[in-house]
Amino acid sequence: MTTARVRRTGTPGRPGYDLDSLLAVAVKVFNEKGYDGTSMEALAKKLGITKSSIYHHVSGKSELLELALARALNALFAVTTESAATQGRYIERLEYVVRRSVEVLVAELPYVTLLLRVRGNTQVERRALARRREFDAFVSDLVIAAADEGDLKTGIDPALTSRLVFGMVNSLIEWYRPRSGESVSNLADAVVALAFDGLRRTP
Amino acid sequence: MTTARVRRTGTPGRPGYDLDSLLAVAVKVFNEKGYDGTSMEALAKKLGITKSSIYHHVSGKSELLELALARALNALFAVTTESAATQGRYIERLEYVVRRSVEVLVAELPYVTLLLRVRGNTQVERRALARRREFDAFVSDLVIAAADEGDLKTGIDPALTSRLVFGMVNSLIEWYRPRSGESVSNLADAVVALAFDGLRRTP
Repeated sequence: MTTARVRRTGTPGRPGYDLDSLLAVAVKVFNEKGYDGTSMEALAKKLGITKSSIYHHVSGKSELLELALARALNALFAVTTESAATQGRYIERLEYVVRRSVEVLVAELPYVTLLLRVRGNTQVERRALARRREFDAFVSDLVIAAADEGDLKTGIDPALTSRLVFGMVNSLIEWYRPRSGESVSNLADAVVALAFDGLRRTP
Repeated sequence: MTTARVRRTGTPGRPGYDLDSLLAVAVKVFNEKGYDGTSMEALAKKLGITKSSIYHHVSGKSELLELALARALNALFAVTTESAATQGRYIERLEYVVRRSVEVLVAELPYVTLLLRVRGNTQVERRALARRREFDAFVSDLVIAAADEGDLKTGIDPALTSRLVFGMVNSLIEWYRPRSGESVSNLADAVVALAFDGLRRTP
């Protein structure tokens, strides 16, 4: 991404925005007010810069959305090509993908939050939904393969199971707030333990 | 609830609305457009009646929201006083509450969807959030008690576990669509099996 800076209007001594920091503010506003409810005017005001300074970086609101959704999707898809997701027994791959998805969600919380709220109102949103479905299919295929290898309980519906496990993972956006000292790996451990081994103590 | 009927303007031959059917339409519109984004004008237009016909039933938009959220909350709280939720080993009570919550969510899908999207912008929303927290505390207490009875795996964090299990349950609003022939009890079985016994086949 570009590192060109945009000077804030009227505040020459203060730092400007590069595309990344502009995007971070835009995503925060989209999550608070909704994408549809956010105008470029409101965004420029929030940033303390002119609209034309935003247009220096992007063609408009839609491109900001596209870049933000791509950031979340690329981080999730990167997981699917990591070696632990493509080698070994399928149940281990699945466990790895669930764990890493929790980590990505926490690392990219505002971007994934935006992604998970997309409803498909625009072309950009529909493309993002299509990529989400691709990710879901990747996970669902891992569940099928893990069942074929005999590592899952019998009678599990792969598509339903993928949805439930990722329902649990994705629910983090509703209640998880990063706090200093809280370990992401504890959180990922709790999700993996619940999904793979359940709550009930086995005798 | 009252069964008084509201005559649609200009369509004397068509059926009117009682409070329940008025509420059903309002909730559908709130879920589609957002509560904040829905005006009484837009609601009246959608219903094909005048605003004053709506005011015959409720004092305003806020009361419609309150009634809709109360419907979802009352259905969830009703579960907490059912005998299987208040008697027996705590793990069984917990399992019962999870199963019945899935059933309530499916039976009251639009109302629970509205409830789960509430962000606390108004007094009515904040009261609903407070009741949600009460329900969460009830579930979390069941997890603590089940752990005390030795029925849960060791090292489980009760508050985190409640959030994850209900994250999974609540995710249904994102993807579950009622289809004829699909059994709610199969869905509830899948949720309970995953939460309590996990995916992994135990040797």
